[in-house]
Amino acid sequence: MTDHVDALVPFSPDRPKTRLSDTLSPAERRDFADAMVTDVLAALEVAGFAPRVLTTEPTGRDVPETVDDRPLTEAVNAALDAHDPGPESPLAIVMADLALATPRALARLRGSADVVIAPGRGGGTNALLVRHPEFRVDYHGASVLDHLRAARDLGASVREVDSRRLATDIDEREDLAEVLLAGDGAARDWLVEAGFRLATGDGRVTVVREV
Amino acid sequence: MTDHVDALVPFSPDRPKTRLSDTLSPAERRDFADAMVTDVLAALEVAGFAPRVLTTEPTGRDVPETVDDRPLTEAVNAALDAHDPGPESPLAIVMADLALATPRALARLRGSADVVIAPGRGGGTNALLVRHPEFRVDYHGASVLDHLRAARDLGASVREVDSRRLATDIDEREDLAEVLLAGDGAARDWLVEAGFRLATGDGRVTVVREV
Repeated sequence: MTDHVDALVPFSPDRPKTRLSDTLSPAERRDFADAMVTDVLAALEVAGFAPRVLTTEPTGRDVPETVDDRPLTEAVNAALDAHDPGPESPLAIVMADLALATPRALARLRGSADVVIAPGRGGGTNALLVRHPEFRVDYHGASVLDHLRAARDLGASVREVDSRRLATDIDEREDLAEVLLAGDGAARDWLVEAGFRLATGDGRVTVVREV
Repeated sequence: MTDHVDALVPFSPDRPKTRLSDTLSPAERRDFADAMVTDVLAALEVAGFAPRVLTTEPTGRDVPETVDDRPLTEAVNAALDAHDPGPESPLAIVMADLALATPRALARLRGSADVVIAPGRGGGTNALLVRHPEFRVDYHGASVLDHLRAARDLGASVREVDSRRLATDIDEREDLAEVLLAGDGAARDWLVEAGFRLATGDGRVTVVREV
């Protein structure tokens, strides 16, 4: 655990969290997305990663960043080209909206396989660790299935990280309840400050906003 | 891993999966719920548990069962009373709709603590292992928070199992996509047979039904 593993955190400050537009104003979405990426970067550092933001425009953060305004898949693949991952030089790619991610959950990405993958809800790929030089990403559609298939086609060994915390990306209103339930960082604080509370009923817990 | 751990699987054949009534007929919901409990029981057995169905009416299954038609919380607490769990005689309580549960994921419940808890989406408690004689359940509302608090109040040690597979209970239409994405048992087969397919768009993957 002494060697730091490079980790890329894709971030789009220009169009943050559009699927939350029914719940938060554009400025609020920007602030909330900012709080989430703060939590993810902090958890990565504690877990022994060296994080770098892959951002569509400069963030002004005190963290290494690569600015690339291309769509997610193209920008990540360009970063994989540049990094040229191998067994001794893995590259992790961790989504910026994993507001429940803890250092312990993120450390599980360091498992030994050519490709370590943490599936997200709805078929997404929320976190990856790549040790195979030819593995490339495609974040469209049910990307987790495509990534598993791509790894198999390369003959790469695969390990799946079965983590609720890494599976929970925060995209929609109902996801905010998960942050209130299990988050403990800046994103949770932001929601509480903004007046969000848990609302319990018959089914899953949801949120209400008290202003 | 040689000693079997008793595991209780609450099941309601009389009112199965009402939150899927927009998607499946009553008979289909019964069949699908049946396929899910089949998967959960099989995975528990492979993981070294001795499962028992806690059912609101006789199931006709070739598995030990306790019939108790009271609501979930009361029936589970009666079973805890009867079992009197302790360090050497734990009792697991595993929901019947964890269609993604694998033996590997379920084995993580056997971690050493007085109360081992696998949170579900939306604040639920999808799986528990109880070694403390005084711990009782309350499945209403954000039960995971109540259970963590109850364990703390008893001075019980707690371990949280961070598992996407155990966090994913299948209650609503959107959950069906998770079964198609990551299930590999009777529940997945049932959905495929019934014509369900993954549908990819901009956000999370959903399902369509081709009849």
